[in-house]
Amino acid sequence: MQRSLDTGLGEVKAQLIQMAGYLEEAVKYSTLAWKNRSREMIDKVNQIEAKVNQAHMDIDSACFKLLATQQPLASDLRFLLSVVKINTDLERMADQAVNIANNTEFYLKHPPYPDLADLIKMSEIVRELVKDAIDAFINSDSVLAKKILDTDDQVDKLKDKVFRNALQSIKANSIEAEQGLNVILIARNLERIGDHATNVAEDVIFTVSGKDVRHSQSRDKGVLNEK
Amino acid sequence: MQRSLDTGLGEVKAQLIQMAGYLEEAVKYSTLAWKNRSREMIDKVNQIEAKVNQAHMDIDSACFKLLATQQPLASDLRFLLSVVKINTDLERMADQAVNIANNTEFYLKHPPYPDLADLIKMSEIVRELVKDAIDAFINSDSVLAKKILDTDDQVDKLKDKVFRNALQSIKANSIEAEQGLNVILIARNLERIGDHATNVAEDVIFTVSGKDVRHSQSRDKGVLNEK
Repeated sequence: MQRSLDTGLGEVKAQLIQMAGYLEEAVKYSTLAWKNRSREMIDKVNQIEAKVNQAHMDIDSACFKLLATQQPLASDLRFLLSVVKINTDLERMADQAVNIANNTEFYLKHPPYPDLADLIKMSEIVRELVKDAIDAFINSDSVLAKKILDTDDQVDKLKDKVFRNALQSIKANSIEAEQGLNVILIARNLERIGDHATNVAEDVIFTVSGKDVRHSQSRDKGVLNEK
Repeated sequence: MQRSLDTGLGEVKAQLIQMAGYLEEAVKYSTLAWKNRSREMIDKVNQIEAKVNQAHMDIDSACFKLLATQQPLASDLRFLLSVVKINTDLERMADQAVNIANNTEFYLKHPPYPDLADLIKMSEIVRELVKDAIDAFINSDSVLAKKILDTDDQVDKLKDKVFRNALQSIKANSIEAEQGLNVILIARNLERIGDHATNVAEDVIFTVSGKDVRHSQSRDKGVLNEK
């Protein structure tokens, strides 16, 4: 029985790692879309989303079967419940990548935003967060998971800066309002991806230690008080 | 054993219903905050969030114990897994209510937005969606759950309208850019609450029928292509 459970858990983990690979691609392409003003990248994100959605349902179904047939206990049960939650977070991160691709469709109808440096920096940190969250899960690495919780604050600060600068430019009429809004929405969606990476990190800590660290951090509310 | 499982499932359901009650209050007060320009309502939302966060952890922990000690099968297992997911969605809806309260803190620093009719209509539909999602869960009502999936489209359309009008007003300099942005962010957060209600509805359908209806709907991408 335990051997069959171990095999099942190994398979589910492999499925989640594959899905995480799709997700990393989706986030990468959604960034390249606005950075390189590339419609091709927008299409790629939409293609990947279909794979992520299928994986999302397959993984949920595999977890259900394992819970029903193998009655896992203690750390195995924690692992499976975390997979159920991480699966949801990965799928929602892919939704955000699609949102960014869609924001970019509108962004491309306007002239390039004058200064994308902060948004680019933000996207780099977020991609690193996603990679770290997945690595923390694969290696049951709670130290790395804790690092993610700290790094996410940097993302929030950058988002505030992007918001503030876009607003100032709109007010000064140095950019079109749509241009500024699209950049704001891209920043907001990037920040959401970071939030989901944080959720994954919290689930990894729970799986490894059995400790529930959610709601234990005070969060910086930022310039527009969004969390 | 089954009797003890039934008691446990009943308790977990009661906990979730209590949490849902907090959430409905949080959404209500977050709406009254901007509608009535009330700082008192902002404080109330923040107070409720603490209760939601505690309930979130308690429910997760109760589900874990039931899975570990009672090995539920078939519909009981589906029910418990849905509770785990719905619990997450309710907590994130409360996060959005807090976001709206925080957006409102900034909104109140500026003159009232000239026309809130669409935002008010949107908030009414979203509150109805939240109520219906909770009722669908309480009564295992998959017909009501399916209705939610249809109604959510109306929310997306209204959000587009709010976005478009706010942008036009910013461009015409008839409002301050911050004013418009705050209204856009409130609309965005309301829409997210609607999305989470949709997630809950999908989980209810899964619990009742064992059918996974996620990713089966084509979604309207709207004016700024957000989903």
